[in-house]
Amino acid sequence: MQTKPTLFTSLSPALLHLYDLKNAVVVIIDVFRATSTIASALHNGAKCVIPVDTVEKAIALSKATGGIAAGERDGKLAEGLLHGNSPLEYGPDFIFGQTLVLTTTNGTRLLQMALDNDADTIITGSFPNLSAVCNFLLKENKNVILGCAGWKDRFNLEDTLFAGAVINRIKENFTIHCDSSLTAEQQYLLVKDDLYSFAPNLTHYHRLVDRFGLIDDIRFCLTPDAADVLPLYKDGLLMKG
Amino acid sequence: MQTKPTLFTSLSPALLHLYDLKNAVVVIIDVFRATSTIASALHNGAKCVIPVDTVEKAIALSKATGGIAAGERDGKLAEGLLHGNSPLEYGPDFIFGQTLVLTTTNGTRLLQMALDNDADTIITGSFPNLSAVCNFLLKENKNVILGCAGWKDRFNLEDTLFAGAVINRIKENFTIHCDSSLTAEQQYLLVKDDLYSFAPNLTHYHRLVDRFGLIDDIRFCLTPDAADVLPLYKDGLLMKG
Repeated sequence: MQTKPTLFTSLSPALLHLYDLKNAVVVIIDVFRATSTIASALHNGAKCVIPVDTVEKAIALSKATGGIAAGERDGKLAEGLLHGNSPLEYGPDFIFGQTLVLTTTNGTRLLQMALDNDADTIITGSFPNLSAVCNFLLKENKNVILGCAGWKDRFNLEDTLFAGAVINRIKENFTIHCDSSLTAEQQYLLVKDDLYSFAPNLTHYHRLVDRFGLIDDIRFCLTPDAADVLPLYKDGLLMKG
Repeated sequence: MQTKPTLFTSLSPALLHLYDLKNAVVVIIDVFRATSTIASALHNGAKCVIPVDTVEKAIALSKATGGIAAGERDGKLAEGLLHGNSPLEYGPDFIFGQTLVLTTTNGTRLLQMALDNDADTIITGSFPNLSAVCNFLLKENKNVILGCAGWKDRFNLEDTLFAGAVINRIKENFTIHCDSSLTAEQQYLLVKDDLYSFAPNLTHYHRLVDRFGLIDDIRFCLTPDAADVLPLYKDGLLMKG
């Protein structure tokens, strides 16, 4: 009998170092909103998304590539940028054939940490590309780390819910001995039939909706398969896998 | 209207630094088994429990105080010690009037971290002293950090379940905007009616039961109010508060 690959869930970037990333596919999860925006842009025809860690790099790289510099800090448009981190900004009319250079508070930072820890393969996931992520993980049949981006190292339930959705779909094909994964799946099963009604319980919902009115963003970010592509990281770029 | 104090849950020692401990009561939670053992020893008449971070210190301090050196590493009796980290070892015949010098893998380390972060007040909690912990937190009416000890910085569901039990009892008296606390309470509500039947789902259960046969320890550690004292830390000692 062949041994199944393992699956672990890292609930915060501050816990990522506890897991062996070297032989694993790492799924970067930042539901509100980086990895939903990445899925949206690629689904709508962006040539690629370049994740960077500073606004300065986003501006410099966008000039060098003729791309669009975009991003947020603390949930709002970063100073010096004209485009933010809303998945709804990147419709096909705007983004088709373009390069998006994106910097965000949590998601792009976690991706950099996965690189620094020698991850074998890096993809990004969120509800809008749930099926693409699950299909890729099943096809690869390697160890999996579901990496929740959280909020400035704090635990975020929406990222964990997405981890739970993935686990619920693919668990038969993996060896899972991990209380984080158990909790993620149980939480997902509790609220899966109406993610959108549950959303006001999330701290991040209040940051985005009460402060910035981004209710349409929330709805998109919680809609399974609304932008079902696989963003695969290679040599500094996220492209359709 | 008076503002209610805040309550946060830290799901792992690696996340404790994200919270302001200076004006807070910090509850050290290590359900399997350090904080259950501490409750048991004090409930059965121990004069005090001295938590220390190394086996060497446990031996030296026990000699200096005429106390009992005890502890575990990786779930089993630490080399050089005659007594372990089982709450059932510390019945009244053995522990009454004695000083217990205890070193453990996770719980005593987290307590040291709370000290290093200038916690205002430190207590220890586990299901056997659930009511005493809740009553103390209500009486103090200060900010609360529920600190889960986990397993070598990994998330542990049993510690989070205890955090959820506390939140479920006292939440009306606190301001709680914290996805960790929301998750902890939801998990607790899912399994509270039969914690003991749920236990085999926990990774730590397998470490303790499959490897070391400690099923009676598990049962004690999950029994609410089985040793309902308040261990309060002051000047290096845990004593009945």
